[in-house]
Amino acid sequence: MSKVKVGLCQMTVTGDKGKNISKAQAMVEDCVKKGVNIVVLPEMFNCPYDNSYFPKFAETYPTGETIKALSNMAKDNGIYLVGGSIPEKDGEGKIYNTSFVFDYNGELIGRHRKMHLFDIDVAGGVTFKESDTLAPGNDVTIFDTKYGKFGLCICYDIRFPELIRIMALEGVRGVFVPAAFNMTTGPAHWEILFRSRALDNQIYMLGTAPARNEEASYTSYGNSIIVDSWGSILERLGDNEGVIITEIDLDKIDKTREQIPTFKHRRTEIYDLKLK
Amino acid sequence: MSKVKVGLCQMTVTGDKGKNISKAQAMVEDCVKKGVNIVVLPEMFNCPYDNSYFPKFAETYPTGETIKALSNMAKDNGIYLVGGSIPEKDGEGKIYNTSFVFDYNGELIGRHRKMHLFDIDVAGGVTFKESDTLAPGNDVTIFDTKYGKFGLCICYDIRFPELIRIMALEGVRGVFVPAAFNMTTGPAHWEILFRSRALDNQIYMLGTAPARNEEASYTSYGNSIIVDSWGSILERLGDNEGVIITEIDLDKIDKTREQIPTFKHRRTEIYDLKLK
Repeated sequence: MSKVKVGLCQMTVTGDKGKNISKAQAMVEDCVKKGVNIVVLPEMFNCPYDNSYFPKFAETYPTGETIKALSNMAKDNGIYLVGGSIPEKDGEGKIYNTSFVFDYNGELIGRHRKMHLFDIDVAGGVTFKESDTLAPGNDVTIFDTKYGKFGLCICYDIRFPELIRIMALEGVRGVFVPAAFNMTTGPAHWEILFRSRALDNQIYMLGTAPARNEEASYTSYGNSIIVDSWGSILERLGDNEGVIITEIDLDKIDKTREQIPTFKHRRTEIYDLKLK
Repeated sequence: MSKVKVGLCQMTVTGDKGKNISKAQAMVEDCVKKGVNIVVLPEMFNCPYDNSYFPKFAETYPTGETIKALSNMAKDNGIYLVGGSIPEKDGEGKIYNTSFVFDYNGELIGRHRKMHLFDIDVAGGVTFKESDTLAPGNDVTIFDTKYGKFGLCICYDIRFPELIRIMALEGVRGVFVPAAFNMTTGPAHWEILFRSRALDNQIYMLGTAPARNEEASYTSYGNSIIVDSWGSILERLGDNEGVIITEIDLDKIDKTREQIPTFKHRRTEIYDLKLK
């Protein structure tokens, strides 16, 4: 089981939740027809990336409309489904930017609440403050599949090298990153973040973005991407709606680590990274 | 003192130690004429990068010929001098890949012994085993200047994100990396390693390589480079002998950290990186 076919759905997100769910479903079914084993949706795929929408679109597990639809898509198609992310409301009324992962039986096997909230203010560029409406998650998220362990984080989380490093030390073979970079940070940092996390940790990095929508208040950079354990880009989309479907070979990770054995060479008697 | 002029000397290294020292001296003097405050030499600048040469060329502090010459170059020219690296022999006969740093009085202010030895074996590419002749250093190296604190590591050390992260957490404004990547790892990973360490840690990264010498047993990639705290390449050489001279503005670090405040957003209650 070293080979797995993944599908990254770079879908256009609108202000109509029902339409977004239907679009996700159509793209998932397209992947399934092409033999995909793990399908990934983008960050905030059911909701415009905008603080004014998050509370209105938020859902509670397990009864939320989008959450139920994701579980059914996974079960009906017999696939693993990394459900991008959606606004999630917990019992106390807090809202999170959350990714739900379902297995081929429709069972929840992973849930990541974005740990690092996107509060940035670039002069002459983008300004956004997620913490105006969202609460942060407090857990590193790893889930198990029949292909091995995978990590999961959301967008701005990727900027924190400790997070991905911890996942790699825990044995993940790849990290799924539903993410909506923008027209400032995307051209500057998207590619290098995915490539460097892959290279440093000798794992696959898989980024899935919403398609670019110039009419949205926040313009997604797009550019969904897969990088291998050598740091090389395997596939990358542009700005339009589309799907990356590609088979990745997880054995490549072991080959990379034999050739450049950085994991063997770490000096953990001098520095140490720990999950508390 | 937020602006400092740095000079990176991409010099050709030969099998003649005296000639290598003279060449270093000439390049240092050229930098000084152009108003450089901190001059940096490449990895193994006095010795071919080859296990068969390291024991023969090794010197002991403070009496070694190259070590004394470096101290004099710094003092005579009133500059900080990051002395690339040379083979160093300690009192017990162990040999290290060591970088000596001198201040404008010719006083030793930093010494880094390469912590991660370069033992790699890339199929169809480069194979090298430093541990055949060298011993590893055991210390993270930070030195103080009138421009602020800087970190220092050597070549393969840069592949370990924990090391540079610890330096950044300790407040360094930049990291000097004397380094000789090769024709396999250079094209694949040189640029991305410098750019990503700079971006993740919002500091300057400065790599100084030997010029490419196709006749050497190990062919240096060259490509000496300076990257700023936004992850952008400020200057980069090709394969030939040459010097990068450029003024860097250390205030840019603070501006970057205001715009994308990742250091403020780290979740140290969840993960923690420590120097033991």
